[in-house]
Amino acid sequence: MKKQRIGIQGELGAFSQTAVYQLLGKNAEVVPYERFEQVFQALQRHKIDAAVIPMENTLAGSVHENYDHLLHFDARIAAETSVRIVHNLIAPPGVKFRDIRRVYSHPVALNQCLRFFSTNPKLERVPYYDTAGSVKMIMADRPSDAAAIASSVAASLYGAKILRRSIEDDRRNFTRFFLLYSNKRPRRAPPSKAQWKTSVVFTTRNIPGALFRAISAFALRDLNLTKIESRPLHGKPWEYLFYLDFLGREDEPRVRNALGHLAELADFLRVLGSYPRGG
Amino acid sequence: MKKQRIGIQGELGAFSQTAVYQLLGKNAEVVPYERFEQVFQALQRHKIDAAVIPMENTLAGSVHENYDHLLHFDARIAAETSVRIVHNLIAPPGVKFRDIRRVYSHPVALNQCLRFFSTNPKLERVPYYDTAGSVKMIMADRPSDAAAIASSVAASLYGAKILRRSIEDDRRNFTRFFLLYSNKRPRRAPPSKAQWKTSVVFTTRNIPGALFRAISAFALRDLNLTKIESRPLHGKPWEYLFYLDFLGREDEPRVRNALGHLAELADFLRVLGSYPRGG
Repeated sequence: MKKQRIGIQGELGAFSQTAVYQLLGKNAEVVPYERFEQVFQALQRHKIDAAVIPMENTLAGSVHENYDHLLHFDARIAAETSVRIVHNLIAPPGVKFRDIRRVYSHPVALNQCLRFFSTNPKLERVPYYDTAGSVKMIMADRPSDAAAIASSVAASLYGAKILRRSIEDDRRNFTRFFLLYSNKRPRRAPPSKAQWKTSVVFTTRNIPGALFRAISAFALRDLNLTKIESRPLHGKPWEYLFYLDFLGREDEPRVRNALGHLAELADFLRVLGSYPRGG
Repeated sequence: MKKQRIGIQGELGAFSQTAVYQLLGKNAEVVPYERFEQVFQALQRHKIDAAVIPMENTLAGSVHENYDHLLHFDARIAAETSVRIVHNLIAPPGVKFRDIRRVYSHPVALNQCLRFFSTNPKLERVPYYDTAGSVKMIMADRPSDAAAIASSVAASLYGAKILRRSIEDDRRNFTRFFLLYSNKRPRRAPPSKAQWKTSVVFTTRNIPGALFRAISAFALRDLNLTKIESRPLHGKPWEYLFYLDFLGREDEPRVRNALGHLAELADFLRVLGSYPRGG
């Protein structure tokens, strides 16, 4: 069977690659791109079979840029997964913890390990372009006194050693990823027993009663919401975009009715996909 | 009159300092801290008079960490403002654009100027700890071939020159900041004509009908929502925290009634503050 080619943003070994493994197993071929927009373009032009894209983080919030790409490109959500962001101190084989003076990583990752750095004051934090890239760099340059902070996938990919596991300050750091296919691809046969989720984006012109009526479409049909988020549209002070996830599948009659009802109330409505509820 | 001491996270010249100027004018003394938690601690211990904290960005979403700090520390929102994130190419006086080969900044800022870099392929992007810090560094080291990307406040603070203004890819990049006071500080006399906003955080045990009923407390009293966001509580798959902003002031009878109604329906409710609606 031909390996599926899966696009991600970032270097090989990024947390997106962990998400690919969780969603599709280790047999997928991961294709890295520098920017999110390039991943969506590649998907639309069928240069990759699917894309795995971060949509929200428990500390940093929703990635609006990727919701925008979901609206502008022709993609459909096929699955979701949550990756716990575990930061590890990683060094080339042979380098010992006591030799380390400099630690390279993305500034966001360095800032999520401040407790580790305050108990190890001899370690200098050095900002680098991304987490996995910092492992790649120390394995290429082999400095005798430097380490990197990244995922365990990055360590094994570049043949480096994990010296300290899980050095992040907050263990409740999860990123939710979507598996996206082009809309033109045939849909997979859905597993029958899974609980399903559907994601939609809609706009209302005026938030007061409008949102209340919009979510009545779900409440009146006992459909459980699992996410709601308003996003102001800049330059249009009274217009909002809403992200809404609920339990149910697009082809269930109750869901079809709720979406029909919502379409009456919203100025714009797009169903981003129905997919098995993920861990 | 004694200058107010205002805590921010980041180097002097960070976008938070622009927010301080917008909220309080240039007469405030800005006190920088490395981490957000330290700013909240300083506020609680009365080491600073107020804090100015980023809460959400139009591209990157809500800063959940700071909502958490708002719940755990004793702070009250007194004002809000929106800062457009304008990235400028900044160099020491005398350095010309054609001499520049390296550009330092925070990776997030570098990634928000990709169009500029693709039209200027000779420029190497070099990650640095933060935007304002990269200006401080080039002004201290004075390399003849390097520039930084940061705010115009950083350029003027460190005596550097702006060579190219507004090189960011997306001009709809705004960050919303709150001005926070300690809860123990006496409240200021409110201006009478301004439109007011109130921010609350609440939890419900089960989202289906619960959220619908919760927002009915506002819809039934014609109170306009301006933000709603659910945040899953990790380890508690069916519990959610909600952020909600609406137009109205805590001491209006209609608002008091709505909050009383919401308190009946929510497991937990905290009013974060009422403040004049900001630009």
